[in-house]
Amino acid sequence: MAGGADTPALVAAVSEAGGLGSIGAAYLTPEQIAAACAAIRAKTQRPFGINLFVPLPDPVADDMRAAVAQVAPFFGELGLPAPESPSHPAWNFEAQVAVALGCGASVVSFTFGLFPPAARDAVKARGLTLVGTATTVNEAIALERAGVDAIVTQGSEAGAHRGTDASGLDPGPFDAAMIGTLALVPQVVDAVRVPVIAAGGIMDGRGIAAVLALGADAAQLGTAFLTCDEAGISEAYKRAIFDAREDDTRVTYAFTGRPARGIVNRFMNEVEAAAARDALVVLPFPLQHTLTRPLRVAAAKAGRPEFLSLWAGQGLRLARRGSAAALMAALVEETDVAIRRLQSR
Amino acid sequence: MAGGADTPALVAAVSEAGGLGSIGAAYLTPEQIAAACAAIRAKTQRPFGINLFVPLPDPVADDMRAAVAQVAPFFGELGLPAPESPSHPAWNFEAQVAVALGCGASVVSFTFGLFPPAARDAVKARGLTLVGTATTVNEAIALERAGVDAIVTQGSEAGAHRGTDASGLDPGPFDAAMIGTLALVPQVVDAVRVPVIAAGGIMDGRGIAAVLALGADAAQLGTAFLTCDEAGISEAYKRAIFDAREDDTRVTYAFTGRPARGIVNRFMNEVEAAAARDALVVLPFPLQHTLTRPLRVAAAKAGRPEFLSLWAGQGLRLARRGSAAALMAALVEETDVAIRRLQSR
Repeated sequence: MAGGADTPALVAAVSEAGGLGSIGAAYLTPEQIAAACAAIRAKTQRPFGINLFVPLPDPVADDMRAAVAQVAPFFGELGLPAPESPSHPAWNFEAQVAVALGCGASVVSFTFGLFPPAARDAVKARGLTLVGTATTVNEAIALERAGVDAIVTQGSEAGAHRGTDASGLDPGPFDAAMIGTLALVPQVVDAVRVPVIAAGGIMDGRGIAAVLALGADAAQLGTAFLTCDEAGISEAYKRAIFDAREDDTRVTYAFTGRPARGIVNRFMNEVEAAAARDALVVLPFPLQHTLTRPLRVAAAKAGRPEFLSLWAGQGLRLARRGSAAALMAALVEETDVAIRRLQSR
Repeated sequence: MAGGADTPALVAAVSEAGGLGSIGAAYLTPEQIAAACAAIRAKTQRPFGINLFVPLPDPVADDMRAAVAQVAPFFGELGLPAPESPSHPAWNFEAQVAVALGCGASVVSFTFGLFPPAARDAVKARGLTLVGTATTVNEAIALERAGVDAIVTQGSEAGAHRGTDASGLDPGPFDAAMIGTLALVPQVVDAVRVPVIAAGGIMDGRGIAAVLALGADAAQLGTAFLTCDEAGISEAYKRAIFDAREDDTRVTYAFTGRPARGIVNRFMNEVEAAAARDALVVLPFPLQHTLTRPLRVAAAKAGRPEFLSLWAGQGLRLARRGSAAALMAALVEETDVAIRRLQSR
């Protein structure tokens, strides 16, 4: 949940309630990671995790004019200065890992491929738990061979970025790896020995009981926590989640240049339509992310969901308001109820 | 499982083992339906079902030359006469329903939308159970309002034709309705009062226990039965299933003109690539089905899977050989084990 939804208050509340809260640190500077971890530690002594993106090859984009021109009118609508050609954000993966090792987190999880061996060894030497993300069985096997301690299976229902080990603007590998959670989990469980953490479409205790039945050792929920009181997203974003149906999301390149599932809106529709005519309209990740970020920040402030990246999974109708502690208690109770109901069949 | 996989022997074996075998009768003449039902009745006195396609608007295809030309070389490779422009198959829905009512089936299920009211009333007057197919919550609500007795939820993992209430070659409505089983089932369960039968990606008892945990009342499996001894598919098709991975399937219009999930092969790749350049290369359903049918029949005989519609869901790695009775027994045992394992957590 990189991008601000996962406030220290949200992460700490989940951990306090017996879950493993996790901070999406991919977009954060080392200083911001340290500050977030300190804020979490001030609220809980229980374990929490940090999630990072593995470094991707530098994107190639010689001509950014079409992409900049495509989003310029949207900037104008929000009264923003005209956008300029983005530069590669100065993410420093090694520095992020270095801070993550010493900030009090117990788990380092990652997505988009394999963790670099040196970083893996550093995490292990520190005694932390290393968790990778798989969208296919072969990705899970590769992660196990690369030494992870557990694997998150990301089903096709999941919101936000696809964790597939691929890059660039060719949708082929990403499309092939759109495996539904119900099919993905047991096939991964059969293929690896490390624990499997199921993600994708889980919104309540029925979903948790279901993935445990499939053989998963744990469940990971994202969208369900977006509408919690502690989540750091705009009210416009929360409203969009409550107003949306399960068939209102789509996987799009429009916001970041990397496939991610979000609620369909005007920005997505217009950029995708333009990209269908001119492939240069969308820049490869993370350049498109950098290009559109000022627009999204301004749209959140202005309450304009048509310009927001409304990342969400397919379980939207099950979203609910309340505190993270209340949601965690409900999840535990619902899981018990679902399991007891199975027994009594 | 229309198209020959569902032999009377397979349907009867499933029903004899305590399941509800079902015959995919959409492509059958009334006489063929009567014969199939008689053959089933000769093997079992237990309940079985019949599945039909609801009538779709007549497809519009003024110029079929590009579509015929696209598949002609494949016909040549198999030594078949050159294909001609297909005519609409003479399916007689009313006659299919009339036979279904009196052939010994207990359940009439359907897909592609809403059952015509007159046919619905005839099924109900006969005391049979009417079951519709939903790929979204709103489709499920519409089915309940239209008087079905139960609803099959078809998750995005499912093999073969999408049951979405749409027609034509616009992928928009079909794409939006690609909801993973884990997300779809609980949202439908919350929205309707009739029993829900979950389908899509279920291959073993873990999957059955999972959908029961999600709130489904029953599970429907298709791909799992394709590799049974009694299944009427070619050995080439069965081999393709055993050789495929979970990320080897795709939803395609190439074989029938209606989206359906199958194992990616040469026919799919070449027709889709051609269709990307010339939209007229694929005819709307069922014209494309009629056009390609002789090719697929010949390919099955010749053991050429590259020309077969290899319909299959995303749970491919879980496919197994054996009798339908053995599979049914395994499913029951595995479901019990999965539920007991949940209890002991």
